[in-house]
Amino acid sequence: MSELRENCGLFAVYDDPEAASLVPLGLFALQHRGEESAGIVWSHEGVLSAHRGLGLVTEALPPARMSQVVAKIAVGHTRYATAGGSGLHNAQPFLASTAKGQVAVAHNGTLTNARKLRRELESGGAIFSSNSDTEVILHLVARAQAVSFVDRLKEALPQIEGAFSLVLLSGTTLVALRDPMGFRPLVLGERNGKYVVASETCALDLIEARVVREIEPGEMVIIDERGLRSERYASKLKVLPGETPRVAPCVFEHIYFARPDSNVFGRDVYLVRKALGRELGRLHPAEADIVIPVPDSGVPAAIGFSEQTKIPFDMIFTRSHYVGRSFIQPAQNIRNLSVRLKLAAASNVLKGKRVVVVDDSLVRGTTSKKIVALLRHAGAQQVHLRISAPPTISPCYYGIDMPTKAELIAANQDIAAIRDFIGADSVGYLDLPAMRRAVGYDNASQFCEACFSGQYPVPVADSQL
Amino acid sequence: MSELRENCGLFAVYDDPEAASLVPLGLFALQHRGEESAGIVWSHEGVLSAHRGLGLVTEALPPARMSQVVAKIAVGHTRYATAGGSGLHNAQPFLASTAKGQVAVAHNGTLTNARKLRRELESGGAIFSSNSDTEVILHLVARAQAVSFVDRLKEALPQIEGAFSLVLLSGTTLVALRDPMGFRPLVLGERNGKYVVASETCALDLIEARVVREIEPGEMVIIDERGLRSERYASKLKVLPGETPRVAPCVFEHIYFARPDSNVFGRDVYLVRKALGRELGRLHPAEADIVIPVPDSGVPAAIGFSEQTKIPFDMIFTRSHYVGRSFIQPAQNIRNLSVRLKLAAASNVLKGKRVVVVDDSLVRGTTSKKIVALLRHAGAQQVHLRISAPPTISPCYYGIDMPTKAELIAANQDIAAIRDFIGADSVGYLDLPAMRRAVGYDNASQFCEACFSGQYPVPVADSQL
Amino acid sequence: MSELRENCGLFAVYDDPEAASLVPLGLFALQHRGEESAGIVWSHEGVLSAHRGLGLVTEALPPARMSQVVAKIAVGHTRYATAGGSGLHNAQPFLASTAKGQVAVAHNGTLTNARKLRRELESGGAIFSSNSDTEVILHLVARAQAVSFVDRLKEALPQIEGAFSLVLLSGTTLVALRDPMGFRPLVLGERNGKYVVASETCALDLIEARVVREIEPGEMVIIDERGLRSERYASKLKVLPGETPRVAPCVFEHIYFARPDSNVFGRDVYLVRKALGRELGRLHPAEADIVIPVPDSGVPAAIGFSEQTKIPFDMIFTRSHYVGRSFIQPAQNIRNLSVRLKLAAASNVLKGKRVVVVDDSLVRGTTSKKIVALLRHAGAQQVHLRISAPPTISPCYYGIDMPTKAELIAANQDIAAIRDFIGADSVGYLDLPAMRRAVGYDNASQFCEACFSGQYPVPVADSQL
Amino acid sequence: MSELRENCGLFAVYDDPEAASLVPLGLFALQHRGEESAGIVWSHEGVLSAHRGLGLVTEALPPARMSQVVAKIAVGHTRYATAGGSGLHNAQPFLASTAKGQVAVAHNGTLTNARKLRRELESGGAIFSSNSDTEVILHLVARAQAVSFVDRLKEALPQIEGAFSLVLLSGTTLVALRDPMGFRPLVLGERNGKYVVASETCALDLIEARVVREIEPGEMVIIDERGLRSERYASKLKVLPGETPRVAPCVFEHIYFARPDSNVFGRDVYLVRKALGRELGRLHPAEADIVIPVPDSGVPAAIGFSEQTKIPFDMIFTRSHYVGRSFIQPAQNIRNLSVRLKLAAASNVLKGKRVVVVDDSLVRGTTSKKIVALLRHAGAQQVHLRISAPPTISPCYYGIDMPTKAELIAANQDIAAIRDFIGADSVGYLDLPAMRRAVGYDNASQFCEACFSGQYPVPVADSQL
Repeated sequence: MSELRENCGLFAVYDDPEAASLVPLGLFALQHRGEESAGIVWSHEGVLSAHRGLGLVTEALPPARMSQVVAKIAVGHTRYATAGGSGLHNAQPFLASTAKGQVAVAHNGTLTNARKLRRELESGGAIFSSNSDTEVILHLVARAQAVSFVDRLKEALPQIEGAFSLVLLSGTTLVALRDPMGFRPLVLGERNGKYVVASETCALDLIEARVVREIEPGEMVIIDERGLRSERYASKLKVLPGETPRVAPCVFEHIYFARPDSNVFGRDVYLVRKALGRELGRLHPAEADIVIPVPDSGVPAAIGFSEQTKIPFDMIFTRSHYVGRSFIQPAQNIRNLSVRLKLAAASNVLKGKRVVVVDDSLVRGTTSKKIVALLRHAGAQQVHLRISAPPTISPCYYGIDMPTKAELIAANQDIAAIRDFIGADSVGYLDLPAMRRAVGYDNASQFCEACFSGQYPVPVADSQL
Repeated sequence: MSELRENCGLFAVYDDPEAASLVPLGLFALQHRGEESAGIVWSHEGVLSAHRGLGLVTEALPPARMSQVVAKIAVGHTRYATAGGSGLHNAQPFLASTAKGQVAVAHNGTLTNARKLRRELESGGAIFSSNSDTEVILHLVARAQAVSFVDRLKEALPQIEGAFSLVLLSGTTLVALRDPMGFRPLVLGERNGKYVVASETCALDLIEARVVREIEPGEMVIIDERGLRSERYASKLKVLPGETPRVAPCVFEHIYFARPDSNVFGRDVYLVRKALGRELGRLHPAEADIVIPVPDSGVPAAIGFSEQTKIPFDMIFTRSHYVGRSFIQPAQNIRNLSVRLKLAAASNVLKGKRVVVVDDSLVRGTTSKKIVALLRHAGAQQVHLRISAPPTISPCYYGIDMPTKAELIAANQDIAAIRDFIGADSVGYLDLPAMRRAVGYDNASQFCEACFSGQYPVPVADSQL
Repeated sequence: MSELRENCGLFAVYDDPEAASLVPLGLFALQHRGEESAGIVWSHEGVLSAHRGLGLVTEALPPARMSQVVAKIAVGHTRYATAGGSGLHNAQPFLASTAKGQVAVAHNGTLTNARKLRRELESGGAIFSSNSDTEVILHLVARAQAVSFVDRLKEALPQIEGAFSLVLLSGTTLVALRDPMGFRPLVLGERNGKYVVASETCALDLIEARVVREIEPGEMVIIDERGLRSERYASKLKVLPGETPRVAPCVFEHIYFARPDSNVFGRDVYLVRKALGRELGRLHPAEADIVIPVPDSGVPAAIGFSEQTKIPFDMIFTRSHYVGRSFIQPAQNIRNLSVRLKLAAASNVLKGKRVVVVDDSLVRGTTSKKIVALLRHAGAQQVHLRISAPPTISPCYYGIDMPTKAELIAANQDIAAIRDFIGADSVGYLDLPAMRRAVGYDNASQFCEACFSGQYPVPVADSQL
Repeated sequence: MSELRENCGLFAVYDDPEAASLVPLGLFALQHRGEESAGIVWSHEGVLSAHRGLGLVTEALPPARMSQVVAKIAVGHTRYATAGGSGLHNAQPFLASTAKGQVAVAHNGTLTNARKLRRELESGGAIFSSNSDTEVILHLVARAQAVSFVDRLKEALPQIEGAFSLVLLSGTTLVALRDPMGFRPLVLGERNGKYVVASETCALDLIEARVVREIEPGEMVIIDERGLRSERYASKLKVLPGETPRVAPCVFEHIYFARPDSNVFGRDVYLVRKALGRELGRLHPAEADIVIPVPDSGVPAAIGFSEQTKIPFDMIFTRSHYVGRSFIQPAQNIRNLSVRLKLAAASNVLKGKRVVVVDDSLVRGTTSKKIVALLRHAGAQQVHLRISAPPTISPCYYGIDMPTKAELIAANQDIAAIRDFIGADSVGYLDLPAMRRAVGYDNASQFCEACFSGQYPVPVADSQL
């Protein structure tokens, strides 16, 4: 139901004869990170080939096609488009020929200096065939001077800034890495003695791979015929002398993006969301008869809220399994149809009730307004909206497709105005300390909270702000 | 997650210029009643035309095609195939030319004397172009002697037996009716002064139509240019002199099939399911740490169970929105993949816990066995399976696609054997009285409980038993 | 380029394990007889199954689907729609269940009493699921009383009138027959000792089957496990005592419909067309510099015309291989685009030349008008149009999709008016005696010439005329 | 029927509001130059966008999509794949972003130094996303230093060698040019005062554009807001002092590739082909009863042969309009099925006849062998094969997809051996002087005859020979 979209999911398999069957499975588990296109690059006898398609994984990578692929190494990617860039030419992984061989790259995140790099590369004669920031990485690797692929990559990486979890493939060498701040997740897994890489642990679980560990911020894991080795390609940034290194894993992964059954940045997402709900109950209890979530991501927070406040949990909304990308011919004059198509409301529970409705975020506020209207229409006497996150006041430049600041309601309105716009009896958000308690960290230097605080851990060009 | 499938959903709109846009919307809300094909027949200037397609409503009735249809009257149908009959030639509504004009029929239910009627009709020279029992209805109407369509229909109806909610269309006359026992639901709605007919109220809600009332068992509602009138085409059966009429609405609609936000047979489905859960908690409490549902249909029962037993509710399973009809290339040697693809389990909640898992039914038991295995694999110390229905011991012959008696685990095994097969620490079902209390009726003559009792309210041919 | 369309092509294979691969091949060779839909019914262990699709054979019967079919007996059909009837529900072969088993029928021709029969059948309670005249045949067979399929068919056949070449299948019995007048062709072939039936010999040639002989007018060939036998199910009509039987094979098959490499009604089509051209040269020579055909069907007639008149043959038009059914977005203001898309004209040959252009027929005249305009635009000094057939003055009711009499230019205009409309310097048609000489028969009782003479060999209901 | 394939067709429209409808029409007329993919790049308000697809023009550029494009400038391309390069990523026009704006390029021909340039560019850090030689052009333009697009193009062009007719687009500037040798055709047209560019004049004819003139070898025509201007970007090569400039238009365009209704290199293709046939009749007459062509390209040569030898022309082969790219499930053991599917043979004409069959080229000889077998099987007493070209002894490196020298039968066998392989009674080719007479030029310096002479006008890297 959210108005936010993650940009990408990554999945790779090394040295498994079923690689081309496992990658679509892994991407299926990461489908929530990108529903617009999916792609795979595989390596057979050192030669890389690609298949990319629009749509969900099952459409873009049809089993009939995948079953023909002979490969033991494969990298997959699933993605949302950012504005204007939904064409197939933007689908990843990208694959290019360079002087020193083929290179494929799959990227989750956003490079904050991509425009500048692109301008510089173009000035140096480079041509770009996509609109994606990811393409600059291929150019930088291609222009690096070192002999080995890994060394060229190490020349390239210091030039890029921002959020990037990457999986790269060249010949038979697979590299998985995270940016020095560690904005986006990336985990290493193992299955039958072979290595697997995934954006989230849920993809490992699906194929019965074991989680080995997170790839660290600033770490590069290299898998080739000789096995696996790790290198630290970047020293971590320090906030102040003597302090722990500044890292910036995205707290929004825990609040909304990641699948509840994943363990992200060392924490179980489901448990964090319940804790967010308990903190929310502590901070903004309500005189109410029932607590209900906006499914799916609001469910654990609502359970936590109920545990804390002792207000009974109920689940009147059921999310439709048939919406997705399909198109319904709209009939005129049906109010709030988009929400009605997505959520079935067992509304008779609500008659005369004072209701707390828990959602994970409030961006423009337009969806919440429709939900409150539905609840009132169904007879709710009071509607109290609770958001299991602090107010979203600043856009993300690190890989989330978010509206501009002008469109973020909390960036422009106070609580009373938001409440009136939404039509709720009350609105309550978490504050930053409560969120940190729930997620389990102490201060702003341990996570990226930019969308809630406006403090950007990596500088963003003025033109983008 | 269930292994049971309803056969059909019906939706019709009368005298609305948006009829051809509203019918796909209504069918979308009834998609859970049939995912295999969808169809529409519309009437324009008294001439009926049809469009049918395989797949979900959005595939079978593409908006680009529907937007070209000019019609104020339209009937839609969505369906599952029974064994061997998944072709387009079995998609409904059926449309035929007869001596007295075109007739279209959409059917939810199963005729128990269809084979016999088909044999008789064929002996009289009739030809059949489908495998569906519904086609006999068209033949009977075509062979009736009366002048008016409604009178011919009244000649035909006494000949058919079993479960049938029907919507028929001829020229500009729409007829909606239920069989004398009222096995399957059918409701009348109204929108902007125009009539709408639907299998469930959730389809009325979606298009902002008001529920007028249920169509009664044995009642026929006729809508034509002169307005709406009701006729009782069949007297209800009596069990014994002095008793109330025997009716047989399907109790399984409440337990599993209907959407939780529908009101079916005068009862809110969501509330009934919570009551089923409370009865289950009363009958089969457990020493446990958490109660979890198998989503989606197990959710309200689990909440009710938690309310009754005070064992905290949790929701570790999230149902995938991406499965549906799409195909995933299987990789070898991934255990329980079919369940893993459908359910994401936030399994870290489970470590060392004693878990009650609530599901709506247990048919073959194979899916429950996989779910219990998943829970144990995730670290659950104990797993107690609770079913919010009595044991399913007899197949349905009235419109549900159910395995044979030999495949129904509860028809062949006692509780201990079921528990061992499933791998649970305990298994608990509802009994009939508890189910009746939750649904809100007194005795076996008010609902069809055949799948739980083996007592069939309408005789079934020996060949079918 | 013609504005006329044949209705159907038939092809069947008996007792060949490759039946389901051979039928699409045979239909491919008969594609010119119907481009709108194709279908196949096959028999496996006595059970009939069907697959039908819209479009060309290669689209409607995709090899991937056909390769899964296990069957040694199969019947195929390819068809054009008549007005308003292009839906999949009209695609043949039709397959129905009857009291005495399944029956499939594939039909080439048109029944002249279909409406009357349909009315009668409907009065007797029959329902129709298509708009096709062919469906009545199934009903008549279903209502026949005899025990064996062949005997029931013999009860049914005397009731139908008009043009019908039929292939029927029931269990493992295949029947191929022609109406008593023999309007439409049907030939028996043999391949590796197994029987094959086809509308034209070109389909036999393609699969290297040998032509055994034509099926005779009024003859029924029955192929079953015991082998092949022939029965005469109808005595031929007599024109006068002492005369030869009246038959009515369609002369238009020779003029336009049949493929030039077929032998139809005992005559090689290509040779007949050359002879038509020679007769045309004899009847309507011209003072001209070159003779050119409108391809493809005008080619042999133009060669014959050239042989007769000694005017050099040239071939400035090449027919596009890319038009077919595909759709081109029209740009405004391009004159005669439809003809330009179909015919490439090597127009520089034409400058200052006096040109004879030979076409096979002139129906509405609109296409010929465009062709003449193209030739003049290219610099032709004179354009003489020669038609290798007599004037088309009456519609066909025996299986050709032809405009109404009001639209047939030769039915309403004299030669001078036609010439002026077309914009030619002269227009010349064959006369009936010349046509007969070329085709090789003596008088009107040996062929159907209704479209040229208005004499209909089988009565046509007034409502149709 | 040929085993040779041209690489590409180009079409562009400038300053016409229907540009996006006209380009698919123009490409439709050039479909014979490439059936594998088609693409279009359009310019709207100076911004370039692209759409490319696999298949025929009507599939790759669907009218529904094209009708949404708003643009007055558009460039289209249709293409065959060379070996291994059939993916969508090789479909043209290519579109890239460079430091000085977007550049699109559509290419017909082959660059002989592409590998070397690619290696150099890659060494300089360039990355390649296709396998096509055309991509190097984009890199060279991107790396050029000049300010204006045209000047950068002029920096790039001297670096490329080989065969290239190009249409490029940047902002609102369209450039059409031919390589200094003029291997591939390119013509300028005009329609309603606006400029059009096409590979062949037949594409201009289709949209009723007037032929202005050929673009000259070494000429660059620039069309922008200021109008049209021409520049000579390369001086022509001289063979010897005092002689006319060496140019190398491909003589095979006349023999086989170009459409017969085009005027190519100042000559009407149809007339040239007739002249080739007359020369062939002069050089290799035969004692025969009929002359027949292998359609379509052999038709005018056969007519010319007949004119010269007075042996009657006949046309027993009709080419199927249904083959194209569709796939037919093969049945086993049907000999020469591929030829039978493409050519219908009115074989009864042939019984006992001595036949001359005229084809345009003989490459591997396998198709001709099948055709001769078909003719003999149909009863031909003698079969004399005549080829309206000299023996093909050397592969083309300038834009034709031709087998290697080892596969060219005439490069490895003498006439007697070819005759025996083909199974003909005699085989006759043109010689170089006769071909020149027919095409209308004097010596080897005026056309490229490399495939017939082995003399390559532009050096080809050893690795390619």
